[in-house]
Amino acid sequence: MSSSEPQDAATTSEVSKKAAKKEAAKLEKLRRRQELAAATAAASNLSVEDDPFAANYGDVPLVELQSKTPVDVNEWTRVEALDDSLANRPVLIRGRTQTIRPVGKKMAFLVIRENGFTVQCLVQAQPDSVSPQMVKFAAALSRESVVDVEGVVSIPAAPIKGATQQVEIQVKKLFCVSRAVPTLPINLEDAARSDVEIEKAIQAGEQLVRVNQDTRLNFRVLDLRTPANQGIFRIQSQVGNVFRQFLLAENFVEIHTPKLIAGSSEGGAAVFRLDYKGHPACLAQSPQLHKQMSICGDFGRVFEIGPVFRAEDSFTHRHLCEFTGLDVEMEIKKHYFEVMDVVDRLFVAMFDSLNQNCKKDLEAVANQYPFEPLKYLRNTLRLTYEEGIQMLKEVGVEIEPFGDLNTEAERKLGQLVLEKYGTEFYILHRYPLAIRPFYTMPCYDNPEYSNSFDVFIRGEEIISGAQRVHIPEFLEQRAQACGIEVKTISTYIDSFRYGAPPHGGFGVGLERVVMLFCGLNNIRKTSLYPRDPQRIAP
Amino acid sequence: MSSSEPQDAATTSEVSKKAAKKEAAKLEKLRRRQELAAATAAASNLSVEDDPFAANYGDVPLVELQSKTPVDVNEWTRVEALDDSLANRPVLIRGRTQTIRPVGKKMAFLVIRENGFTVQCLVQAQPDSVSPQMVKFAAALSRESVVDVEGVVSIPAAPIKGATQQVEIQVKKLFCVSRAVPTLPINLEDAARSDVEIEKAIQAGEQLVRVNQDTRLNFRVLDLRTPANQGIFRIQSQVGNVFRQFLLAENFVEIHTPKLIAGSSEGGAAVFRLDYKGHPACLAQSPQLHKQMSICGDFGRVFEIGPVFRAEDSFTHRHLCEFTGLDVEMEIKKHYFEVMDVVDRLFVAMFDSLNQNCKKDLEAVANQYPFEPLKYLRNTLRLTYEEGIQMLKEVGVEIEPFGDLNTEAERKLGQLVLEKYGTEFYILHRYPLAIRPFYTMPCYDNPEYSNSFDVFIRGEEIISGAQRVHIPEFLEQRAQACGIEVKTISTYIDSFRYGAPPHGGFGVGLERVVMLFCGLNNIRKTSLYPRDPQRIAP
Repeated sequence: MSSSEPQDAATTSEVSKKAAKKEAAKLEKLRRRQELAAATAAASNLSVEDDPFAANYGDVPLVELQSKTPVDVNEWTRVEALDDSLANRPVLIRGRTQTIRPVGKKMAFLVIRENGFTVQCLVQAQPDSVSPQMVKFAAALSRESVVDVEGVVSIPAAPIKGATQQVEIQVKKLFCVSRAVPTLPINLEDAARSDVEIEKAIQAGEQLVRVNQDTRLNFRVLDLRTPANQGIFRIQSQVGNVFRQFLLAENFVEIHTPKLIAGSSEGGAAVFRLDYKGHPACLAQSPQLHKQMSICGDFGRVFEIGPVFRAEDSFTHRHLCEFTGLDVEMEIKKHYFEVMDVVDRLFVAMFDSLNQNCKKDLEAVANQYPFEPLKYLRNTLRLTYEEGIQMLKEVGVEIEPFGDLNTEAERKLGQLVLEKYGTEFYILHRYPLAIRPFYTMPCYDNPEYSNSFDVFIRGEEIISGAQRVHIPEFLEQRAQACGIEVKTISTYIDSFRYGAPPHGGFGVGLERVVMLFCGLNNIRKTSLYPRDPQRIAP
Repeated sequence: MSSSEPQDAATTSEVSKKAAKKEAAKLEKLRRRQELAAATAAASNLSVEDDPFAANYGDVPLVELQSKTPVDVNEWTRVEALDDSLANRPVLIRGRTQTIRPVGKKMAFLVIRENGFTVQCLVQAQPDSVSPQMVKFAAALSRESVVDVEGVVSIPAAPIKGATQQVEIQVKKLFCVSRAVPTLPINLEDAARSDVEIEKAIQAGEQLVRVNQDTRLNFRVLDLRTPANQGIFRIQSQVGNVFRQFLLAENFVEIHTPKLIAGSSEGGAAVFRLDYKGHPACLAQSPQLHKQMSICGDFGRVFEIGPVFRAEDSFTHRHLCEFTGLDVEMEIKKHYFEVMDVVDRLFVAMFDSLNQNCKKDLEAVANQYPFEPLKYLRNTLRLTYEEGIQMLKEVGVEIEPFGDLNTEAERKLGQLVLEKYGTEFYILHRYPLAIRPFYTMPCYDNPEYSNSFDVFIRGEEIISGAQRVHIPEFLEQRAQACGIEVKTISTYIDSFRYGAPPHGGFGVGLERVVMLFCGLNNIRKTSLYPRDPQRIAP
């Protein structure tokens, strides 16, 4: 439950229009500096003309990058595959110049990175092939440029510290495929640094650059290249994959419901409105209505992975205006526990899979943002809402019996559950009806409670689910009671008039799953290009 | 290449506001008729009171459907599993009353449908258990209601024609879980009927109801229950599944890019605009810009499945305002053929998988909308655009050498390719630059052509792809040349300033793949809840 940048949310929330202007001015300055540096770099590349080995290096001309020559991609060796089995063999690799270190005028070390793996390359002047001009060309490369390196694999006497691969390439040819600007707005080294390292340096009297969340997001394309971010989004991809494979194996059908809908989605203020060919429309706040309609359409069990839109003004560490919803809806025979059973098995399978199949990625995340592996049980703990608030009461936290838990109470309960049951993943069910959406089925024995549940990871909610009202007259009545204009959702309610099986479902936020599984402190870290009330770029 | 309802697009395009009003009036009338019928049905259920076996049938009270009793879902047998191995065994099934046929006052046949499988059930008065009132209750059920049936499996002497399962259930108990309105706006039998059958009837002097496309969509929830539609959306689910599994196995990472973007997406008039917290924004016309940025972010190979939005006014059989995009972007070493290689292998694998794993679903589609299996080669045919227009020229169809193919020319070329090469799936590449988006890489040898391709199924385009311009200065120049305000896409162009590998990719419309693989004539048939310029409901 570590959180390495606790001030993030607060810091970013202070970004104002003034700050945005300042940022723009800074960017403009940076742009000018970059242009100047590029010009200087170009000028220093001029002495190549009378080099007999000039064909062995240089910038690849545009025409060569315009699909001039079809190639066998296997001519390139992946950096990941470079090991001592390739000793003395010629190889061609493509990657980025992560670091460039000239040693005098006759030697330069490059570290080349591809897909998170790095290898050290030595450009050393040789009378028969490598000219001092080529060394100069190598030394003048800008970091993060894309290069093709041809050379011979050698085994170094001592272990290499600055690269993942324990071989070195003796460079014979070096071509720059795409040159990065000489002065990057973020140094990758800085962006990849953990807070632990920064704190240590401070204690040692040193100062290391800390890249704040907003700067990262402004230059997201660079920020994404850090090992932690590469890990985060590969984990995210795997979460989606496990979710789908699990459900497909259990006879769920993947559906795609419309994001453009007439009326006002599920109601409330938090919708983005727009004009649809002269008709008022909005962006779906979730696939709720259409996934239920698909149950009425006899698909039995459905799921969807897609964007959901919330125009909320919440500027917290865990809210976004657009995120990826993992949604499930299924027929049940009798009881909402049937839905919770799917949640239980699905998420235990997911956590198991992440721990088994994403080791390297989890490690990369933990290196920058240390966290403890998630504690979860083989059979997920289920507590009723009443039991939950009773546990809180026992430690002096009073909750309105039919009110909601605030974030603080949720965290506290998470702590209590962890102490008592040894799990950071559990289900709280039988919520008060008043705090659930209109389509939630009330309990059979007490209509102040509902057949609903939330699921928590590390004290934060990630899943909401429930049995739904499948009887149209009752649904209409519930909508009215919740202040929803029934007319605006008539196609939805009408869907239940043609025979509707009892059903239930749940929704999960993909970004939250990754954030909480990895104990991260801000949902912006797990959204590729986050959208919040103050950010719609890049 | 059959098309069973060629008039569809034309018919629907004539829907006007007047027609909508008429439709509304019709619906209101229907509603009143339904209410009356429901009241009558309720009244006819009254004689139950002095039935000693009254506990064996009836409507399940609401309270029993509110998660009162947790159950083992295995108590229910799936209709699909009903066969002679269960002879003389008691079973409980849940399904819809597809047909209800009373025979006198002492007997009624029900056909119960679950997940596309059907079984005949006999409710017959028995002195010791089944009362005439229960038979009356069964006979009065409305079609499409959801029921629980308890009974004993028996093996009929003669084959059963009206059901998929070759056993009969002797009903002991019958409970209605959810009652459909007595008069449905569409009869499933009518909705499931093929045009072939309708034409045959006409020739025999009979008249059968034909449900037109617009009516189907108005009552989509009922329409979706036909075998053909059940098949179509299960095939759609499988297309997405194969797409992802193939790409994940080849080291692609699944990403989720924002649909809410500042500025105007890729330009042009066809964007939905909206207000984003006081800033002008729009819905992404494709993940193009962000998927390319993710390549700059070093993910190497990415894909996305998500909605794309087009505010176009095209009212054709193949355009939608919102559809599901399958998008791919990948680093290439040198040549756009590397992208085409992925397209080739991916789609051959997909077609193979559909033919192997979706037999039942394809059959269900073909029963209503007859089509021939897609003809495709093990190695996909590749023709240049020049070769394509030459083929057309030879049969007298003149195309502007740097213009575009219209729909008619595409179809004609598809026909010629089928005749000459025996395939309905092929790639046309090296398109004129002028008709491709600004980010398309021109050809090395002739800047009037581009490193791009389209892919066709049965003469219609389903995929567009290309190598992209990865050099920021050149990209800026191309954008300007295409009349795009560079300022509005500056974050995109800036992404290439930090070193950008050569790359390319493609986009596919999920609905089109399913439509054309199944030889369907209208994309509205393969979109769950289609959105076109005249439809934003249900």
